[in-house]
Parts: sequence; C-alpha cells; structure tokens
Amino acid sequence: MNYEDRAMKLHEEVRGKLEIRSRVSLKDRENLALAYTPGVAAPCLKIKEDVGKSYELTRRWNTVAVVTDGTAVLGLGDIGPEAGMPVMEGKCILFKEFGDVDAIPLCVRSKEVDEIVHTIALLAGSFGGVNLEDISSPRCFEIEEKLKEICDIPVFHDDQHGTAIVVTAALINALKLTGRRLEEIKVVQNGPGAAGTAIIKMLLGLGVKNIIAVDENGILLPERDRGMTEHKRQLACLTNPQQVSGTLKDAVKDADVFIGTSVAGCLTSEMIGTMKKDPVIFACANPIPEIYPEEASRAGAAVVCTGRSDFPNQVNNVLVFPGVFRGALDARASQITEHMKIAAAYAVAGIVKEGELSPEYILPSIFDERVKTAVSAAVYQAACEDGVSRV
Amino acid sequence: MNYEDRAMKLHEEVRGKLEIRSRVSLKDRENLALAYTPGVAAPCLKIKEDVGKSYELTRRWNTVAVVTDGTAVLGLGDIGPEAGMPVMEGKCILFKEFGDVDAIPLCVRSKEVDEIVHTIALLAGSFGGVNLEDISSPRCFEIEEKLKEICDIPVFHDDQHGTAIVVTAALINALKLTGRRLEEIKVVQNGPGAAGTAIIKMLLGLGVKNIIAVDENGILLPERDRGMTEHKRQLACLTNPQQVSGTLKDAVKDADVFIGTSVAGCLTSEMIGTMKKDPVIFACANPIPEIYPEEASRAGAAVVCTGRSDFPNQVNNVLVFPGVFRGALDARASQITEHMKIAAAYAVAGIVKEGELSPEYILPSIFDERVKTAVSAAVYQAACEDGVSRV
Repeated sequence: MNYEDRAMKLHEEVRGKLEIRSRVSLKDRENLALAYTPGVAAPCLKIKEDVGKSYELTRRWNTVAVVTDGTAVLGLGDIGPEAGMPVMEGKCILFKEFGDVDAIPLCVRSKEVDEIVHTIALLAGSFGGVNLEDISSPRCFEIEEKLKEICDIPVFHDDQHGTAIVVTAALINALKLTGRRLEEIKVVQNGPGAAGTAIIKMLLGLGVKNIIAVDENGILLPERDRGMTEHKRQLACLTNPQQVSGTLKDAVKDADVFIGTSVAGCLTSEMIGTMKKDPVIFACANPIPEIYPEEASRAGAAVVCTGRSDFPNQVNNVLVFPGVFRGALDARASQITEHMKIAAAYAVAGIVKEGELSPEYILPSIFDERVKTAVSAAVYQAACEDGVSRV
Repeated sequence: MNYEDRAMKLHEEVRGKLEIRSRVSLKDRENLALAYTPGVAAPCLKIKEDVGKSYELTRRWNTVAVVTDGTAVLGLGDIGPEAGMPVMEGKCILFKEFGDVDAIPLCVRSKEVDEIVHTIALLAGSFGGVNLEDISSPRCFEIEEKLKEICDIPVFHDDQHGTAIVVTAALINALKLTGRRLEEIKVVQNGPGAAGTAIIKMLLGLGVKNIIAVDENGILLPERDRGMTEHKRQLACLTNPQQVSGTLKDAVKDADVFIGTSVAGCLTSEMIGTMKKDPVIFACANPIPEIYPEEASRAGAAVVCTGRSDFPNQVNNVLVFPGVFRGALDARASQITEHMKIAAAYAVAGIVKEGELSPEYILPSIFDERVKTAVSAAVYQAACEDGVSRV
C-alpha cells in the first residue's frame, strides 16, 4: 500500500487523532458534587476574585489554541477550515507528545484579518497561548501583530517563528562546523513568505549584516516594480545593503549560505559552484527540495539541510514549538519575545556538542528527549529575564 | 473539611479537570509521517473535495463546543468568562463520562449577543455541535435563535432545554402515578427565566392547555405594567388562558402542578393546601428549594422533585444532555428539533417502568447506564424521522 493510502487508512480507522479525557473520577455522587455542582462554585468564586487563579484552578496553564483559517495548509494552499483540521489535529498531538501541552484545534470560517483576530481575542481567556498555523502570507503577519497587541497571552505563528528558530539553530552549528561568524556571512534567502521573512528578521537580529532576499521576480529592491507588495518593500529596506539587483543566480554569487523556503529544483549545481567555498545550503521546499542533498554535496556544499525526514539535518518545527510553548506556559508568559526565540535557537543548537558536530549531524533528532527540556528551560529563563513571566 | 474546602482542594490538586489525549502513536518517524506531514495531506484533500468527510477523517463527529460568556454561572450571576471555566470543564467531563462525547470548553470575553453569535458561528466547522451554557436570560434566547439560523450543526442551550426535558420526563411519570393527563392539568410555572421559559414551551407543545407563569411581580399578563420585558410579554400571550391576575398565591389555587425555577422558600405549605388534591411539586431552586420535600409532603404533595442530589427525584440535566448530543452526533443532525427533545423526555421517563413508579422514584438515577442508550437512541430516531439526520 502506498503512503497516501496508508495515511487515509489511519485517518479512517482512528476517526480523529485526539480526544478529551477527564482527569477526575465521576463514578459517584460525592465526586460529582466536588467536580461539578455544587462544589465547583468555590473555584469559580476564587477566579472571580482573582482572574490569575484561572491558571491554577482550570487547565488554562497548560492549554494552547491551535488556530487556522485553512488558507495555506501544508503546500496545498487555500483548502478551507474543515480541510485544515487533519493538520491541526496532528499539530495538537505533537504538542502533547513532545511538549506535554494540551492543544485544541480551532478552524475559523473567515479570511478577514480583523474577523479572525477578533474571534481569537474573544477566546483568549480560555487559553494560556495561541499557536497560529497555516495562514497565508502576508495576512499571517497582520493577524499575528494585531493579536500580540490585543492579547494578554503568548501568540506565536509557528510557520514563521518555529521555522526561523530551527533554521537559526542549524545555521549556528553549520557556521561552527565551517568556521564562520554570523557577522561576516552573506546569506541568500529565496522565497520570503511567512517562514522566509521570519528567518530574515531573526538573522538580522542576531547580527547578520548581508542578507539578500529573492522571490520569483528576482532580488528584492525597494525600487523594483514587479510584484513588490508592502511587505516585500519593507523586507527590501531591511536587506540587500549593497543594493544588488538581478536574479537568484546573481544573488548567490559569493554567498556563504543559501536558505530556500521556495520551490522544487530552483537551485542548481552551477549556482552552488559560484558560492563561497564550503557553502551551507538549506533546501526546505517540501516534498521536493530546491536541490537534492547528494547533488548539492557533489557541487561543493559543506552542509545541506532539508525539510525531509529521509535526509540528514531535517528542519522540523517539532524541535521547537512544543518546548517554546512549554517554557512560555511554565513562565505564564504574557508574550513570546525575540529573546525567547533566540534562546530557543541556541538551546536546539546546543544539544549537538562540538565533538559530535558533522555535516550530517548539525540538528538533533526530533526524538532526542533532551530537546524539549533544553528549549523549555531556555525559553522560561529568557521570559523571566525579559520581565514577561507572571509566576 | 467542609464541602467548599474539599472542592477547592480537588481543583488545586488536579489543575484542570480535562486534558487532550492523542489517539495515535507518534513514537517513530513512520507514525509521524502518517499522522502528520506528509501523510496528512491525503485526508486534507479528501475533505477539501467533500466537506462532509470532516465527520469521518477528523474528530468533528464526536466533538461539541461548550460555550459560555460567564454571565449566569450556576446561581453566582455574572462572574466573567474565566471564572466560568471550572463549570465548563465540569460540563465537558460529564459529556465524556455520560455520553462519550468530546466536549471543549470555550469562554467568550463578550456580552454582546451578535459578537458571541458571530464568534461561535465562525468556529462551527470545527465542531459537530454547540452546547450553550450559563448565559443570562433573555440574551440566551436571542443567541440560541440566531445561532440556530446560521449554523449547520445542532445548537442547544442546556439550561433551557436540558432542564425542560428532565422536568417534562418527571412530569410524565408523576402524572401517571397520580392518574392525570397532560391536557387537563393546570400548571403554575414560577420563575420564567431560561429554564422556566423552555419548560413552558415544551409543555405547551405537549398539549398542556392551562399554564400560568409567575415572576417576582406576580402573574404574567400581556397588559401588566411592571417588569414586562418583550420576552415576558410573549410568554404572557402564550399562557394564562383565563387571564388571571395576582400573586403566586393566587396562581397556585386549584393548580395540579407547581414548577419552580425561582428562589428559596417562596412556596408555602399554605399555598400547597390550596392546590388540587395530590399536587406535583417541582422545587428546583438551588441550593435551597422553593419548599423542602418533607414540608411539601406534609402539606399534601403527592410527588416532590428538587434540583438536589440528597433528595429523591433529582432534576439533573446530566440525565439528558449527554444522550441528546450522543444521538444528535450519531445522526450527524443539522439541528435539534422539538420532536427530538420530546423523544428524549419520553425516553428518560420510560426508564422507570410502571411497576417501579413511586413518589420517591419518578426519575432514574444519573448513574443508571440505560439512560444514555435510551435517550441517544430516541433522539437519533427522531432526527431521522424529522429529516435532519445526515447519515
């Protein structure tokens, strides 16, 4: 049976990948009277006096909403909220398995930024955090920004920041391995959508000076005419310090690092041949990468990362989002700061010790149990340092 | 330790009465690839083709949102959405325990009817049904009506209909026991809020002709001046065929049945003395009933029901809402019709066989395992008969 058929069979058999379970017994009147009426009035009144007690007397301290509008589900595009649910359920069980977080999938029947923002904001009292998922760019930026302003709980768009954190972690280790410093490298980012944009911003925040962003119309420049949305014009102003113009081929010349969040096969061996010696290649397009690892290595790449589990160095957000929320929830954080994200990146990178680093091992396995602990501890500490913790 | 302290201790220890559990293994890459990317694309695309498949490939078929705005929580009043959460969590675990339904608590930070309606409507694609809870009257009527118009899934305000179904079930059996027919009785309903109004409407639908509704200002009459809201004026037009005016004392004279969803101690022995012989008394105010059962019996009551578990004949919604939603979900019903509710009432009543009926046993125990099966089967069948089933 092929892959697709096996996944269908699993979903048909299990009829939903998650369920609600009770944490208390309801087997007799006594238990019922303590967990429900009349006993339940006591914790209600306690929370009424002090809303912060909702983190102690209900599941809020451990509960995250996983929210989509179904507009950018996997690589499938705008398939609608109901069709996005299998991914959201999957995300929720990853939250539980890898972060012990209770995550609840909510698929919103709207594509209006303000409507989505308002819906989530009205529910914020039921959750300890919000994970946005598979919302199309550039709407995702606006939705996240507006929610962060309104909400008193952390809001995190995993497609942006989860990916940016893993890529940054991998880059930190790849630079160690190839003897480079963040300040001196030239980075080409191809495909500045949700993930690409967040990667660029995180690397700029870490001190990378020379980043060139490239889309299907070529290098981003403020004065470029074609396909320059407001979002891309802003990116163009933040990047490309030497105001280079041209195509991807022009951009990658003498670059140290290529970070693709773009389309299958767009990076060629010839292009890699024009990069600096021992270049670092992120070919994250899924399922077919920008260039296959073997081909990239033959062309001289020192390190290759992809989004796939069947090659080494998989850029997989599950390394990050469970621990980020675990740490943020444990700190009862009001938001997830840049510092918390950077702390998460260094925590992931730090799992692979210097003596273990190799071109085939710059990122830990998603099944490495040290990841969650390291990421959540780093995020928790950063939250305390930033004064956004409420415990 | 007193009751309140024990309930607080339970809530402090358990830190949330429910949690999310995964229904699939995620222990290796193979499982991960089937439950999440890339395998999950297959069920997503199937639902995109046919949204109805969301009932087969996700948990939607078994999932109900339990929604409040925190404005009428228990008898505590408007304590806010966060403070309502302990009750919602309790409701959700009752759904699981007694109906095997996965229920998700959502507390909305708004008191605006249209805002609440819109929020819930936008989330309807994530659920198989919506249970409204502890929303103040008369807003609850408007919210439910508007949602029923917009949503393609069942919407049920348990405080109204759950209570009405149990009271109706008890009344059916009490009338059997005392040899009366629905068509010939005179009923006084005291306290026409959410529950009282629904009870009146259900009894009218079942053929009861003479119902008098009474509130804190006396008997409802269309031309009464004091405290007549639009909702009460409508009720006044539906009830009181002889256009009686006066107080509760005037209303209960020669009544067969008193149904109180009102305040502690408002029904006296003397009033019961003026009712028909062998009257049936529902004293559902909580925690202190309109009259205590012992006193009511001494005054001549043939049957007394309360809302309390420490007296016989407890009017407890848990007899109803789990089975109603179990049946509605199994039928993939688009709505919950009057017929489905009436079927539920007769199913609850039917559990107590004629030979078993006694003044102290007119309602089954909430732990009677036949209840769920009987209610869900009756609701399922009624949904099919009404053409609102989609299986």
